Amino acid sequence: MTAPTFTVPPIDDLQDEALTARVQTALDQKTKPQGSLGRLEALALKLAQIQGRDLPALEHPQMVVFAGDHGLAARGVSAFPSDVTWQMVENFLAGGAAVSVLARQHGLALTVVDAGVKHEFAPRPGLLQRKIGWGTADALDGPAMSAAECAAAIETGAGVVRSLPGNVLLFGEMGIGNTSSASLLMARLTGEAIDRCTGRGTGVDGPALVRKTEILRKVLARHAAATAPLDALAAFGGFEIAMLVGAVLEAAAQRRVIVVDGFIVSSAVLVASRLAPHVLQRCVFAHQSDESGHRLMLARLEAEPLLSLGLRLGEGSGAALAWPLLDSACRILAEMASFASAGVSDRAG
Amino acid sequence: MTAPTFTVPPIDDLQDEALTARVQTALDQKTKPQGSLGRLEALALKLAQIQGRDLPALEHPQMVVFAGDHGLAARGVSAFPSDVTWQMVENFLAGGAAVSVLARQHGLALTVVDAGVKHEFAPRPGLLQRKIGWGTADALDGPAMSAAECAAAIETGAGVVRSLPGNVLLFGEMGIGNTSSASLLMARLTGEAIDRCTGRGTGVDGPALVRKTEILRKVLARHAAATAPLDALAAFGGFEIAMLVGAVLEAAAQRRVIVVDGFIVSSAVLVASRLAPHVLQRCVFAHQSDESGHRLMLARLEAEPLLSLGLRLGEGSGAALAWPLLDSACRILAEMASFASAGVSDRAG
Repeated sequence: MTAPTFTVPPIDDLQDEALTARVQTALDQKTKPQGSLGRLEALALKLAQIQGRDLPALEHPQMVVFAGDHGLAARGVSAFPSDVTWQMVENFLAGGAAVSVLARQHGLALTVVDAGVKHEFAPRPGLLQRKIGWGTADALDGPAMSAAECAAAIETGAGVVRSLPGNVLLFGEMGIGNTSSASLLMARLTGEAIDRCTGRGTGVDGPALVRKTEILRKVLARHAAATAPLDALAAFGGFEIAMLVGAVLEAAAQRRVIVVDGFIVSSAVLVASRLAPHVLQRCVFAHQSDESGHRLMLARLEAEPLLSLGLRLGEGSGAALAWPLLDSACRILAEMASFASAGVSDRAG
Repeated sequence: MTAPTFTVPPIDDLQDEALTARVQTALDQKTKPQGSLGRLEALALKLAQIQGRDLPALEHPQMVVFAGDHGLAARGVSAFPSDVTWQMVENFLAGGAAVSVLARQHGLALTVVDAGVKHEFAPRPGLLQRKIGWGTADALDGPAMSAAECAAAIETGAGVVRSLPGNVLLFGEMGIGNTSSASLLMARLTGEAIDRCTGRGTGVDGPALVRKTEILRKVLARHAAATAPLDALAAFGGFEIAMLVGAVLEAAAQRRVIVVDGFIVSSAVLVASRLAPHVLQRCVFAHQSDESGHRLMLARLEAEPLLSLGLRLGEGSGAALAWPLLDSACRILAEMASFASAGVSDRAG
């Protein structure tokens, strides 16, 4: 496969020791024992580093859900039929899905991107029609997409980010069969055995899980030469994951905060981080899902997820649930009093 | 010690199989794979059971922080001087503490109760002056409080709940030295060794932690006869914990939702649950703190905390951080579409 023509944007290192020291001092002077807000303090520091300012502020948060269909779904790797992809896109837009409800709760603008669903959608507000194809090809027969399609999807994902306001993006996805793509990408890029990367997705158990794993093992063998990140992405799909890769790269280049949802979005971050390792500096990992490979993938990414609620839905639902913690982290820095300002004694010694 | 004259209110069993079945069916028919919202689904079911209705709704949430001083603090069991208790009460009321910031973020009404601080506060909105004494007595010399004081504190805590509107209470606390009371109550009521119940509190490390543990071991031995829950409570204190016991019992009797913060509030729930086991049916455990005994205490209470963020601040800060998850759980039930209503296909089979 020839290399796609996508160019990785320049993504700089965020190391700024002076800023880090100032924010850490500010946190330590707040009216609480040092470090007693735990992960919230680390999150506040990370947000300050991403934005390069002492008082990070989150503006116009955007929840973006990329949707696509998968040729491999016809092999029975999912508990649900492919039609559920477009039906759920309709549900997102109608306001009845989990991510719709949670985005509304938290005032997150919701955009759904048709990255490659096997369905023609009527245009409407909140839907971006960016179809690369009518679902990917069956990865057991050949690559899920061509190199040109992969590059186009990445460019399109980046363009979606450029079209949206604000300084923080929460990414989600929808695509029947896409835990298979995520498992394949993880296995290929990390070298982990496929059975350690494969889980029940939205509901594949027992013998069906064994069958899913065997299919994925064959797909991996079929594309043994696809070892480079973009080659693996084209081989295993899907369109929504490729768009997420582009969206993550563009958001990282712009130093926007990236809130990573579950297993599938994490797989896109994994691909993006192989192209530009510093993207991880911009990522806040919302949760560890119940999908069995996710814990291992997060460990490989050296990610510390905020929540662990046994979620295995995707859509961006976990990112939305973690959102208030990002808001809290900013408020701690901006609004808490210091020992000096509040007249509170620091330590006995 | 003679038994205090406090009467435990009637706290009934919430088992309602018909309601449980209806709510579980409603959750299963939402447009998501069954169980894929994990702990959020269990939370939605619990809220429905507490309120006895299919669509739980949280009204006028009240954050109540009970504050008190501890005679044992003079023994050096805390990293901070006792004066920090009243200084932090002022900080809560001025809006600069972590719990103030987080309560403001989430629209939680904040009430601070002077349960027994060694300080005279000027009256103002948001402060309830319910002082039982000017700090408890030194538990190494005798009981932290008399049986009459203990009963009065419990009654007062119940009265505070009766005076507040809404159907959900988030409980927090402030009191230099009160992790010691919590550790002592835990050791006495669960039978765990005191070193497994004792942690660094807000910042006691190394030799100071060894010394703290030795002091607590002596206090336990000093009150070997205080085995009944209320006797232990009077022996080990504090006034704020006793008020929390009364508040938890009253809230449980009224079937209000109780959001439990960290180690100290959990110790009050432990005492209350020994007086009326069904109180646990009304409790949502917000988080597992970084205080070493908390994990073990939660296990004894068979509690599954929502968050685990390495917090060790108290105040109610963890309860406030978990609050949006309760709101989400209610919204999932009320606002998500069903497979039928959204026209989404359920499963392949």
